Amino acid sequence: MAGTARLKDVADAAGVHVATASRALNPESRHLVRVETADRILREARRMGYVPDHFARGLRTRRSYTVGVIIPDLTNPLFPPIVRGIEDVLSEVGYTALIANTDNDSVAEHLRFDAFLRRSVDGFILATARRSHEAVDVALASGYPVVLANRRTSRTDVSTVTTDDGRGTTAVIDHLVGLGHRRVAYVAGPQDLSTGFTRLEAFRSAMAAHGLDVENDQVVVCPAFSVESGARAMVDLLARDSGSTAVVAANDLLALGVLDTLRAEGRRCPEDVSVVGYNDMPFVDKLDPPLTTVRIPHYEVGATAARLLLELLAVKREARQPRSVVLPTELVVRRSSGPPRR
Amino acid sequence: MAGTARLKDVADAAGVHVATASRALNPESRHLVRVETADRILREARRMGYVPDHFARGLRTRRSYTVGVIIPDLTNPLFPPIVRGIEDVLSEVGYTALIANTDNDSVAEHLRFDAFLRRSVDGFILATARRSHEAVDVALASGYPVVLANRRTSRTDVSTVTTDDGRGTTAVIDHLVGLGHRRVAYVAGPQDLSTGFTRLEAFRSAMAAHGLDVENDQVVVCPAFSVESGARAMVDLLARDSGSTAVVAANDLLALGVLDTLRAEGRRCPEDVSVVGYNDMPFVDKLDPPLTTVRIPHYEVGATAARLLLELLAVKREARQPRSVVLPTELVVRRSSGPPRR
Repeated sequence: MAGTARLKDVADAAGVHVATASRALNPESRHLVRVETADRILREARRMGYVPDHFARGLRTRRSYTVGVIIPDLTNPLFPPIVRGIEDVLSEVGYTALIANTDNDSVAEHLRFDAFLRRSVDGFILATARRSHEAVDVALASGYPVVLANRRTSRTDVSTVTTDDGRGTTAVIDHLVGLGHRRVAYVAGPQDLSTGFTRLEAFRSAMAAHGLDVENDQVVVCPAFSVESGARAMVDLLARDSGSTAVVAANDLLALGVLDTLRAEGRRCPEDVSVVGYNDMPFVDKLDPPLTTVRIPHYEVGATAARLLLELLAVKREARQPRSVVLPTELVVRRSSGPPRR
Repeated sequence: MAGTARLKDVADAAGVHVATASRALNPESRHLVRVETADRILREARRMGYVPDHFARGLRTRRSYTVGVIIPDLTNPLFPPIVRGIEDVLSEVGYTALIANTDNDSVAEHLRFDAFLRRSVDGFILATARRSHEAVDVALASGYPVVLANRRTSRTDVSTVTTDDGRGTTAVIDHLVGLGHRRVAYVAGPQDLSTGFTRLEAFRSAMAAHGLDVENDQVVVCPAFSVESGARAMVDLLARDSGSTAVVAANDLLALGVLDTLRAEGRRCPEDVSVVGYNDMPFVDKLDPPLTTVRIPHYEVGATAARLLLELLAVKREARQPRSVVLPTELVVRRSSGPPRR
């Protein structure tokens, strides 16, 4: 590898004191140096091939300035903005995120978790949490700072950043009931995930608040938040012929599947059936029809999780206080929801 | 941090020789141990809080088993599958990807590049390449293995993985001419990017091959591959009133902007104007109308780039041979393209 230049060489080339060069080259102290000066020092360091010794510094500080981020699948459109939010906040203070995909497979998760431990990550952000989740228990028991993003476990002694699924789902039901719908079907997410569980609970509560019954044949619980699961759920609902005039899906991928089945069966949306999603993932405003959904602040979920983790990293283990942040949601009404057919 | 258990403790608990435990715990030698045995050793290591010393190993081997991956923006739907392909291949052999977003800003890119050097990455995969690109020059001059993914520079002494923009664009023009279009407008990408440049060249060649002229008022060059740029380009094209019956966009985001403007101006697609994109990004099959586009194998671009980098890492610097891989594309005809109006 490159790099025989010493710190002093870089300082001389940039015309600054060695201490200034050191400060500029250390992400944690760079803010102490004027921006133009720091840029000049970094430029000289790069030109001369100067590379501070990551491994020697790690042995000295026992910090790697890396955070392990574990997500289900980067190609699910929910996660890129969350990861982007995490990375933007971490990189500002010289931390780097290591990303692992688990595909919700617990063996894959264990392997990636181990790999992160071997790389001496300083803490974890997990977006894979099931309501009961061994990896979270292990990380906490090992003394690592942990923040759960998007989903939570049933534990209350861990920092979490989630969005207000209760209010989000209630807003959907208020909207549909306001349009005149009385029989509303629900395509639920996996019940071992807090998002799937909480949104279904909120659906039942919101319907009850309007004095509307939810019969069992109006609810289908899906094994995954996927287009395929949503499509199959809608096939089931049509077969039951429950007379529902609207279908609420627990996320946008499920809603896309619902729309696929409706189209395949020759049912029009919203004329025959209104459909509402959840997440407002990119480009659902350009679907046919544009999807009514609940916007959740994905980027802020990630950015807030990173800030909570940095707070935990700033204090000793004994002084860490878990914090739970719940971010607001917003109903976005588009053309997939309308009045029921008379 | 956790971990006072020694390697011998883990080996004893798993009932194996210390050498076997060591092999199983090292990603590079794990394949030498039976899968069930390796799983048992990893499980015991996790239970006992055993963590091999990343920093001490790094000082010894001078390898970090990390690769710096620099992309424009993870929230652009093109990049998650590329990154996923990179990570899947790297993680199989115990490497981890560090991801940085640059938003195509060269200052941000320099800072992130420096941060990766400080973390002693073993090599780089860059998806940010402009045709002339200093960061690529610096990385190569410093002796780091480098692979360019998706885009290339004008250098030929660097490994690249791209897709066949020539054939992809030619297939689009053949399709439109086959439908009866004779005047075709082109919404081009930035000309300092190989993708933007090559696709525009291919458009001109393919039109010429059919004996069709391309007048200047039929081409708009956009400053970015974005929905906004595509929308503005279509406003320009409509103002020029060039009589084009089809618009080819250099990527799907541009095509989405073109469709937005057509809708805002009350023009129907494909009845009034056919629109074709490029990339087949997720969910463009569910747009209104479903988008005709060129599918590129995003995941394979990333996976192949990672394989090329591992090949470079496996040999000494002097023995490294740059390789260029061009992956095939596929025209996907949907409802946004049809015969021209008579």
